Amino acid sequence: MPKSPLPPLLYADTVTNADMLYFGRVDVHDPFIAFGFRGKKISVQSALEFGRVRKNSDFDTVLSREACLARARKVYGLKAGAAEIIATLAKEYGQRAFRISGDFPAALYVKLTQLGLKLVFAEGALFPEREIKTVWEAGCIREGNRLCSVGYLVAEKILRAAKIKGRALIYQSKPLTSETLRFHLETAIRAEGGNPQDTIVAGGDQACDPHERGSGPLHAHELIIIDIFPRVIKTGYFGDMTRTYLKGRPREVQRRMVATVREAQKLATKAVRAGVDGRLVHTAVTQCFTDAGYETKHGKNGSVGFFHGTGHGLGLAVHEAGRISPAVAYPLKKDSVLTVEPGLYYPGLGGCRWEDVVQVTATGARPLSKHPYDWEIR
Amino acid sequence: MPKSPLPPLLYADTVTNADMLYFGRVDVHDPFIAFGFRGKKISVQSALEFGRVRKNSDFDTVLSREACLARARKVYGLKAGAAEIIATLAKEYGQRAFRISGDFPAALYVKLTQLGLKLVFAEGALFPEREIKTVWEAGCIREGNRLCSVGYLVAEKILRAAKIKGRALIYQSKPLTSETLRFHLETAIRAEGGNPQDTIVAGGDQACDPHERGSGPLHAHELIIIDIFPRVIKTGYFGDMTRTYLKGRPREVQRRMVATVREAQKLATKAVRAGVDGRLVHTAVTQCFTDAGYETKHGKNGSVGFFHGTGHGLGLAVHEAGRISPAVAYPLKKDSVLTVEPGLYYPGLGGCRWEDVVQVTATGARPLSKHPYDWEIR
Repeated sequence: MPKSPLPPLLYADTVTNADMLYFGRVDVHDPFIAFGFRGKKISVQSALEFGRVRKNSDFDTVLSREACLARARKVYGLKAGAAEIIATLAKEYGQRAFRISGDFPAALYVKLTQLGLKLVFAEGALFPEREIKTVWEAGCIREGNRLCSVGYLVAEKILRAAKIKGRALIYQSKPLTSETLRFHLETAIRAEGGNPQDTIVAGGDQACDPHERGSGPLHAHELIIIDIFPRVIKTGYFGDMTRTYLKGRPREVQRRMVATVREAQKLATKAVRAGVDGRLVHTAVTQCFTDAGYETKHGKNGSVGFFHGTGHGLGLAVHEAGRISPAVAYPLKKDSVLTVEPGLYYPGLGGCRWEDVVQVTATGARPLSKHPYDWEIR
Repeated sequence: MPKSPLPPLLYADTVTNADMLYFGRVDVHDPFIAFGFRGKKISVQSALEFGRVRKNSDFDTVLSREACLARARKVYGLKAGAAEIIATLAKEYGQRAFRISGDFPAALYVKLTQLGLKLVFAEGALFPEREIKTVWEAGCIREGNRLCSVGYLVAEKILRAAKIKGRALIYQSKPLTSETLRFHLETAIRAEGGNPQDTIVAGGDQACDPHERGSGPLHAHELIIIDIFPRVIKTGYFGDMTRTYLKGRPREVQRRMVATVREAQKLATKAVRAGVDGRLVHTAVTQCFTDAGYETKHGKNGSVGFFHGTGHGLGLAVHEAGRISPAVAYPLKKDSVLTVEPGLYYPGLGGCRWEDVVQVTATGARPLSKHPYDWEIR
């Protein structure tokens, strides 16, 4: 009989720690204590959060931090803090061993170990079930991607309306900048319940650094990468899509690059299926690029070609378990949700990336994102 | 001669970890390795971030993660990861001991210790100097608070324009909600370069949970708390202010409560001075409330009265070192930046909080926020 796993112990907030959000399903901005006990979820909240968390969360029991601290102080004295509260509760519940995540705070880990608790690192994820998305979760991610599409519609409208003057793009009598385009598309997403952060709107050579957000004037006849990953405020799930645009007249070399990246994306999507090694999906992309003559090179000042993974897990975090990359063998799991996002980056030519989201099925990939690939805007 | 402290070692991103942002002054969304060596700042970046971080950061040296990983694999084999890269670099630099912050990831801490590194937890903050703000930093925080004021002007305009129908507030022919008010004031802040998150717009009894964001229709004749803490995108510093409003006609009990909280805020601000124990400043507030007959009670379903700290440090994080609270003796440091934010919360009556930001001086408190306290809107 397999041993049942130790109950989890967490000390984190729910905004930056997706495990805690998954466990408690509530917004709390400062770190707090939470743990499992006989299948129930227990958390410790200060007076500042107590009432709200009791009303709106998945926690079966919400304990008052002030009351717990008072009990801890009786045993450990006035210097008692989070560690001593946890040790006190562990004693009261008769539960001295917990499983923790690798990003558990080290100082708390050391103190709790000294106080006699047994903390065991989870092998892999703290909640492996987070990788497998339910129908409801897939719907939440689909909504995140719908919000991306809302953003692209705004971006396309602005690019269509912009006038070309030499290399410049003029919108509402001013040079069109990454900042302006970002502001308008993000505002539209927010108006529909999304929280986009650090949206990438990068034109020309700026886009050759795949994580450069982009700033300053956008130019005609240059590729513009727009990568949007908004959080759905109501549920905490993310969307994540990328489209590439060009306002004006593309050169033939740009046209060919854009078509090749789209071709690679299609090939990769076709290769996705439960049980398939993510590395093979990634190889479909690199092979496609090599066959088309697109070389990848790593130099002193950075890399050119294709030098990031093809995809990553998506859910309550933008980057989470699940990967399509050359780094490690990773059999794709049924019902996991992944991005598929090949790209090519060559200074002088610019960058191109197409990114969509799929849910892995027994026979293939179910799309969770939808938006056209029309990239030439005259 | 005092021993010079060990160089810092960090493994974090710069979006959620203010120490890393302080150290590197760059936006990187995924965790990476950074450390100090002989006063220089060194970081390890993947191809995805390399070029951008080399161009725009405070790091003196940016190493290629791929190259470091290749060297680590020669010693530790194919399973080498972040821990083995750090161990390899530690050997190459001849630096085997580092200081780390309490929130350093526990799994990495354990692995590095097993690999022979000596990691010592910083006593208090990893960078104690973060608490003391330079003139430039104070200016960044002032800018954050100016953005708050931009938001209040929008909120006031909307509340003035709203029509009262019975208890309802009608704005642009629809019931005025927390969501609408939040959207408009946040959009104005974003248009000027701020990133407000989770702005609190809470009316009536919703505001009695001080961290409740607020949702649904706002009502006439009820107190509305608006707490805005936007990040200045360009610098990463935060503003943090709270104003309380009431559209319609306040009851005498509401008027008295609002005046008392403002009185307490003035008393607290007057008590701020370098060297003064933050607890004494907090006591000025509790004494003022007690004298005026406002009792604080902790019940099973939450607390009423005044049940949070009077203030906290503000900078690259919304909550950081520096505190005005009853929990612990804390002599206020010259040039540190603190919020001063007393509040009262009574279901039935509603909540009221006034929050401003000051920089501690040798003789008092220099205001870093500015906005009127006119709260009655007819």
